[in-house]
Amino acid sequence: MPYFDAASAAPLHPVARQALLAALDEGWADPARLYREGRRARLLLDAAREAAAEAVGCRPDELTFTSSGTRAVHSGISGALAGRRRVGRHLVVSAVEHSSVLHAASDHEDRGGSVARVPVDRTGAVSPRVFGEALREDTALACLQSASHEVGTEQPVAEVAGICRSAGVPLLVDAAQSLAWGPVPEGWSLLAGSAHKWGGPAGVGLLAVRKGVRFAPQGPADERESGRAPGFENLPAIVAAAASLRAVRAEADADAVRLRALVDRIRTRVPELVPDVEVVGDPERRLPHLVTFSCLYVDGETLLHELDRAGFSVSSGSSCTSSTLTPSHVLKAMGVLSEGNVRVSLPRGTTDEDVDGFLAVLPGLVAGVREKLEASAPAAPSPSPSPAPDDSLVLDTLGKRCPIPVIELAKVIGGVPVGGTVTVLSDDEAARLDIPAWCAMREQEYVGEEPADRGAAHVVRRLS
Amino acid sequence: MPYFDAASAAPLHPVARQALLAALDEGWADPARLYREGRRARLLLDAAREAAAEAVGCRPDELTFTSSGTRAVHSGISGALAGRRRVGRHLVVSAVEHSSVLHAASDHEDRGGSVARVPVDRTGAVSPRVFGEALREDTALACLQSASHEVGTEQPVAEVAGICRSAGVPLLVDAAQSLAWGPVPEGWSLLAGSAHKWGGPAGVGLLAVRKGVRFAPQGPADERESGRAPGFENLPAIVAAAASLRAVRAEADADAVRLRALVDRIRTRVPELVPDVEVVGDPERRLPHLVTFSCLYVDGETLLHELDRAGFSVSSGSSCTSSTLTPSHVLKAMGVLSEGNVRVSLPRGTTDEDVDGFLAVLPGLVAGVREKLEASAPAAPSPSPSPAPDDSLVLDTLGKRCPIPVIELAKVIGGVPVGGTVTVLSDDEAARLDIPAWCAMREQEYVGEEPADRGAAHVVRRLS
Repeated sequence: MPYFDAASAAPLHPVARQALLAALDEGWADPARLYREGRRARLLLDAAREAAAEAVGCRPDELTFTSSGTRAVHSGISGALAGRRRVGRHLVVSAVEHSSVLHAASDHEDRGGSVARVPVDRTGAVSPRVFGEALREDTALACLQSASHEVGTEQPVAEVAGICRSAGVPLLVDAAQSLAWGPVPEGWSLLAGSAHKWGGPAGVGLLAVRKGVRFAPQGPADERESGRAPGFENLPAIVAAAASLRAVRAEADADAVRLRALVDRIRTRVPELVPDVEVVGDPERRLPHLVTFSCLYVDGETLLHELDRAGFSVSSGSSCTSSTLTPSHVLKAMGVLSEGNVRVSLPRGTTDEDVDGFLAVLPGLVAGVREKLEASAPAAPSPSPSPAPDDSLVLDTLGKRCPIPVIELAKVIGGVPVGGTVTVLSDDEAARLDIPAWCAMREQEYVGEEPADRGAAHVVRRLS
Repeated sequence: MPYFDAASAAPLHPVARQALLAALDEGWADPARLYREGRRARLLLDAAREAAAEAVGCRPDELTFTSSGTRAVHSGISGALAGRRRVGRHLVVSAVEHSSVLHAASDHEDRGGSVARVPVDRTGAVSPRVFGEALREDTALACLQSASHEVGTEQPVAEVAGICRSAGVPLLVDAAQSLAWGPVPEGWSLLAGSAHKWGGPAGVGLLAVRKGVRFAPQGPADERESGRAPGFENLPAIVAAAASLRAVRAEADADAVRLRALVDRIRTRVPELVPDVEVVGDPERRLPHLVTFSCLYVDGETLLHELDRAGFSVSSGSSCTSSTLTPSHVLKAMGVLSEGNVRVSLPRGTTDEDVDGFLAVLPGLVAGVREKLEASAPAAPSPSPSPAPDDSLVLDTLGKRCPIPVIELAKVIGGVPVGGTVTVLSDDEAARLDIPAWCAMREQEYVGEEPADRGAAHVVRRLS
């Protein structure tokens, strides 16, 4: 039963399991104590720190273990912002950061700070120039992921780091998705990672802060982990995290070649096998194991459910799979289709057969979902009795959720002459993203969005 | 090799180990995902929450898992204070709370809040009346431990909870030390615990917040654990924590009887075997497995080192064992001797032989430490050529650390007549506690402390 959601959580690496078991016996005591059990725990903690620091590319005393990647990000951002409070309270982040970064940024705004969110291109990458333009005199910190957890696109970290260095602004790199594949390019000031993303156990993150970076931990004082991660160390898990990071790194090059070939197969074959699909993310500068695509006229939640029934575990950035019914902020920032979105992220052991099996079932499942939606959607509605001229048509989809507005748009567009317009009334957040994306895919013109009493009015001109 | 520091970290319970291993295979995926691996993880998480809530005595939806007991305390205090911000910013804590509570209180003060620290009696217990008197119109929260981690004294939680309820003030109970032994008495509003204190793994704390208690989580938003504990759930460890809490509870009554008898033996025998010892903490209302005593004229760090060499792992609240060279805040608040302090906390498997072995080596080790200190301390100094009258003497111990000032005091007291005084000049923080404690133990009069150019001048009157 292939599990294709390594970007959410990788199955435990065998080395992590072995190390965890060994450390349960040797590493349960308090490493701050001076008796033998404490000294043994301290030795394990020190060795784990050495190993993780080497993998990260920093000194052991620059690295602290946190209770999760999210905590590493939260503590890294709040500590760096507080450490440079005198410089100012401006924070720069990319628009496609992990939610932990964006939530920390919102929290900073709630406390009176200001935040610039740097836009990305259609591949999901920031432009170093645009990122640099967001830096100000009062910028205390900049944050950029090493690679996108949703679409796999690698960011130009080295270039952005150089620009930040010139501007005297520390750069925090969220390396959660890429640490398994190699060290982050030089130039970062702070770095965050998460063990369960590389095959380590849950409950361990890491935060590296370069010597010389001003850093003031926030919240109640605590003597553990240099005052940067309060609470008793999650020691056996830390040992397992460090051991598995070494192990996955040793295998990274070989695994990357294999998985990149499998991902290439998905990138190539899915658009051939499934009509009306958009594969998103940079085709070259990307993580080796991750690919994301979106399917027009498909309800993402239903597709995920069907894939699960067929034995494939994937995730999605479609609005219908989110508790807030908004599409993924990453797809939104990229301006790409969000409906029928599927993220495939392959764990290390994925075989050719797994991927072939996926490619074998996907077309039928997508077709099935489309058929059901087509059947349940009303027949091409007759044009509203609106006072609009003949070559335009108003389509009322208020109250209908993704992908229905786009399905209905596709049905009615033939009802206006080439050059005519369809105005789609919609209060669905996903329509704002998916109607323009549909236009780009179907070579129609997205004229723009107009205000409406409820929701928005999306104007589409028929070109073909 | 007996380990006698269960209050710092209990060795992993066999049930915790089994549950952890099972959950590593079943519970590594993201419980927020809807595919089968995610659903399996969710089932494990839900079952763990049910089990832990039953043990705590709350509803499952009132309980969240945090990454440590410290985090549970920090989040509980900050969330409750923010939730009742409109009432005021006054916080009441006992003076003997765990450092995580006291650090959270200091952090609250740093942010402009006010804190009352309720004193304790010589057994380490608060008086419900005195605690109640600390509550004010603007008190947002009160905190009281269920039992002391340092001296084992149980607090009058039920009485204090009743008083808090009458005053409309929520009570947070830090139950880290007592959860293994039974549920906390009714009446708490928030409750914090720590798995590695009950034989569960590191990396898991729990925070229960009663329905109806105003609570506003602080810091960046996060959808996990009801927004109260950001970061990917430490799932296999959570499963192990809940399973081991059930297991230790099932064995608690029998274990308590056995360990209480062993602790009683230590409480009785140590003062018989070792001269000049003070056993501290309430003799009756106490945790079953924990006893603390202090030895006059002994350097705690050396004694711990000697005990470790003899195979016994214990901890100490002496100033020489603290990085800040201050005695334990708990012993200080109790006003009891801190020098030569030893805390013995027995894990479940402790045998009669372990305790007998400890009682067999302790007297010789204490005598050895005393002998070495005696030898290294200067001979009884001749009275300073001070202009003071004959029946008084000034003893300059400036620059000397615990237990030297007390050792020198004991040496010179015979040099003044009964009714005369010795004035001890000392800049050692521990002397402030230990000189009065010495006077009480040796039936001399502690007249008081006078200001001095450096440190303080402690005036002692010879009574016998």
